Amino acid sequence: MIPVSDIEWSTAEKEIARQAFKKAYQREITALIQVVREQAGEITKLDDIWLLHDFLSARRHDIDGKYDHRDSLLIFTFAQLVKEGWLHLDELKGLDAEKISKVSVLTRM
Amino acid sequence: MIPVSDIEWSTAEKEIARQAFKKAYQREITALIQVVREQAGEITKLDDIWLLHDFLSARRHDIDGKYDHRDSLLIFTFAQLVKEGWLHLDELKGLDAEKISKVSVLTRM
Repeated sequence: MIPVSDIEWSTAEKEIARQAFKKAYQREITALIQVVREQAGEITKLDDIWLLHDFLSARRHDIDGKYDHRDSLLIFTFAQLVKEGWLHLDELKGLDAEKISKVSVLTRM
Repeated sequence: MIPVSDIEWSTAEKEIARQAFKKAYQREITALIQVVREQAGEITKLDDIWLLHDFLSARRHDIDGKYDHRDSLLIFTFAQLVKEGWLHLDELKGLDAEKISKVSVLTRM
């Protein structure tokens, strides 16, 4: 079995991956914007502001790390995005079966 | 001339200082809440969120540092609060003349 980090991506697969990535990212960002607007609307005291700040610090760290485009991490990233509900497995259609199977296995871990 | 850090504060003066501190703090926090609510209402993309995050990081650092209650820093803190418009010099009425004069001189630096 090929280690995940050594998997080769064809040009067609890279394009599918790019599109899937983009979709998940758009969904997550749209949801985040919605949450921040709602949370901000409920701010009435300083603690609420620092709570929002802590929340944004955590989300920024998470998002910056998660949407890493390195090929060697794509399988892990996709598994995480599927797990979190930002991506559907069938949106990876077109990748070879082994890649989809790896992602699928990882989502159940 | 007594160094600012060696100035003694009477009980009555400490109470005046506490009240002045509280007023300035309330004003600054109220203004901050307003700004954050407005800024959050205008969020439409991820960059706006990270801009808000950067803004909150800076404000938090500033506010945590500024409202330091140590007696030895009070004169400097008051000067800064007056300079920034959160406190009026006449709200320090009741402190001895030398303290008010020091604050006043520092606001012009």
